[in-house]
Amino acid sequence: MEFYHGGDIYSQEILWDRSVNINPLRAPEGVREAVRRSAAVCERYPDGRCRGLTRKLARRHGVPEEAVLCGNGAADLLFQMVFGERPRQGWLLAPTFSGYEQALAGGGAGISYLTLRKEAHFRPDVQQLIGQLAVDLQDSCPLRQPVVPGDGGLGPGYLFLCNPNNPTGLALERGELEALAAFAEGAKIRLVVDECFLDFLEEPERYTMVPALERYPHMVVLKAFTKIYGMAGLRLGYCLTMDRGLIQAMERVRQPWPVSLTAQMAGEAALEEGAYLIKTRQVVRQGREQLSQGLKALGFWVCPSQANYLLFQDLRPGAEDGRLGRALLEQKLLLRSCRDYHGLDGSYYRTCVGLKEENDHLLAMLGRLYRPLS
Amino acid sequence: MEFYHGGDIYSQEILWDRSVNINPLRAPEGVREAVRRSAAVCERYPDGRCRGLTRKLARRHGVPEEAVLCGNGAADLLFQMVFGERPRQGWLLAPTFSGYEQALAGGGAGISYLTLRKEAHFRPDVQQLIGQLAVDLQDSCPLRQPVVPGDGGLGPGYLFLCNPNNPTGLALERGELEALAAFAEGAKIRLVVDECFLDFLEEPERYTMVPALERYPHMVVLKAFTKIYGMAGLRLGYCLTMDRGLIQAMERVRQPWPVSLTAQMAGEAALEEGAYLIKTRQVVRQGREQLSQGLKALGFWVCPSQANYLLFQDLRPGAEDGRLGRALLEQKLLLRSCRDYHGLDGSYYRTCVGLKEENDHLLAMLGRLYRPLS
Repeated sequence: MEFYHGGDIYSQEILWDRSVNINPLRAPEGVREAVRRSAAVCERYPDGRCRGLTRKLARRHGVPEEAVLCGNGAADLLFQMVFGERPRQGWLLAPTFSGYEQALAGGGAGISYLTLRKEAHFRPDVQQLIGQLAVDLQDSCPLRQPVVPGDGGLGPGYLFLCNPNNPTGLALERGELEALAAFAEGAKIRLVVDECFLDFLEEPERYTMVPALERYPHMVVLKAFTKIYGMAGLRLGYCLTMDRGLIQAMERVRQPWPVSLTAQMAGEAALEEGAYLIKTRQVVRQGREQLSQGLKALGFWVCPSQANYLLFQDLRPGAEDGRLGRALLEQKLLLRSCRDYHGLDGSYYRTCVGLKEENDHLLAMLGRLYRPLS
Repeated sequence: MEFYHGGDIYSQEILWDRSVNINPLRAPEGVREAVRRSAAVCERYPDGRCRGLTRKLARRHGVPEEAVLCGNGAADLLFQMVFGERPRQGWLLAPTFSGYEQALAGGGAGISYLTLRKEAHFRPDVQQLIGQLAVDLQDSCPLRQPVVPGDGGLGPGYLFLCNPNNPTGLALERGELEALAAFAEGAKIRLVVDECFLDFLEEPERYTMVPALERYPHMVVLKAFTKIYGMAGLRLGYCLTMDRGLIQAMERVRQPWPVSLTAQMAGEAALEEGAYLIKTRQVVRQGREQLSQGLKALGFWVCPSQANYLLFQDLRPGAEDGRLGRALLEQKLLLRSCRDYHGLDGSYYRTCVGLKEENDHLLAMLGRLYRPLS
């Protein structure tokens, strides 16, 4: 199986990359300065336990230091979870970020999809999800035949939930999610809530599951510096969980120095950037509204995102073949085609929210290329 | 099981770190400059396939690009091999670098040791190794009970061979190694030759197995930028093999962006540093001779290393308790205690080869602290 991701500006000539959801303000100057400082000490082995950064993250989130594990990007930690515990089965929203499936498939887990409906704007309904999980768990011993069969694992089932979801940008509030977390604890399913884009939301505190970590001791919250601090090139993510056993299992399946010294220094610098987050949310809200209105005015279906990216659909007949994306690519503009997302097809695209002039440019290009049904 | 490594300057105050085997010239200026340049583009996702760097490595080693796989340090690639193929069993020299055992244990493989003898200066005897492997393979179905039992794997057996070996610094010539490689191919054992320190040797071309890759299509050669280019903090290693199946298996168990953009840029810059390698070998040879003679003059047993580090032994009664290392630590100097290496004990230490004044300092400190039997 091949997995696709945004950001492939290496195999094609791209002038405008709208396929990755990086902060439109790019990296703060403090992060760049830390990278430059790291050049002076690049021969030094990094602290394998990331103690300085871990201490700061623990303080920031109000959790014990033992509840924090840093990795070489959040994607790295997905693989460590799966290889550390070897789940028999994983449940995934459809559509959602393909990294979960990639890790589960690599670890031989079976995969079941919890399909979201376009009529509901692909918004997950927690009670429906719980219902489907309950059926899956009852149906056979020990789990219903997954859609993608695995080669058998050892550990518990895993449920990955991206909040806000990628590519839709829709988030569930903590109140709703707690019902799912409680069900998962009871059913011995490990719930992994991926909050990599959550800090782009206007009121992240309403959505984050971090304050619920103690109540759901097997739950994991995944976070990244990658997107919000413009650090995709440096690779830095972390997870939070009260489950010491999981963290130990992850440490057993990873190398001794997973996080570079450069990333650790940049991460510590990023955590000083409070005002930058506030500015980011403001720019993202304005850009999202501009882009959403512009896309609708051009005749696209647009998912009501709360995040720094927008899912939209080309409604013309035959659009599933990805003709719009190809036409843009000829103009050296790259969107994220959603043809490989389960539950979507080549008529769907995801674009990041950019700065005003970047959004103007995308809308102008689409205006020239796109003639909707009249 | 806990695994120890050198370079822990984070949990204790160290002024002189002799526990890591980094180039005494540190990083070349071109590498530092590349790190600083990467600050300007740190929001960009790295090329998951490291195409630019891979092309240069392929050209340098005279292998096809498909034979190269880059990782987040060589240690990262060890875990990918083990998780990609899940060997039932691994064979390791004793003593050798503990990273192989860490990866094998993480992947549930059983482990057998090929014990080296001090009387032979811990130099491997290839015919003896082949003999012991042959016995292990005959003895039962499918493999003799390993010393450390695993929880069962799926793939072939793995033989890790560090050349030059760590911590001894002794290297086997390609002529000798080819007999082992031929045996391994016939016995369906995957031979992994770790050449992370090989470029510190005076005539690396006599030792490297790279020219033999085509003859032994299941063999893997592991290389790192970490030590020779002073890039431990950046994390960059790679492996070379003609076995496409292995590379695909490794890609299945790793995240999409394992190597940071910073490391890729620094690696490309490092490959321009030809004169730096020549200078390095000269400085290392001089420093090794100085340190070796000085240690012998003080009454230590010294292993005849060819690399940028020296294994030596405190011969006083009771030295196994590590008293020398503790006394040095009080002076804020860190050696690599070898107490956790299989086949060694706390009377053995490893030190890197430093610049002349650094070696002078270590010898002077030892001269004050160490009173051998007279």
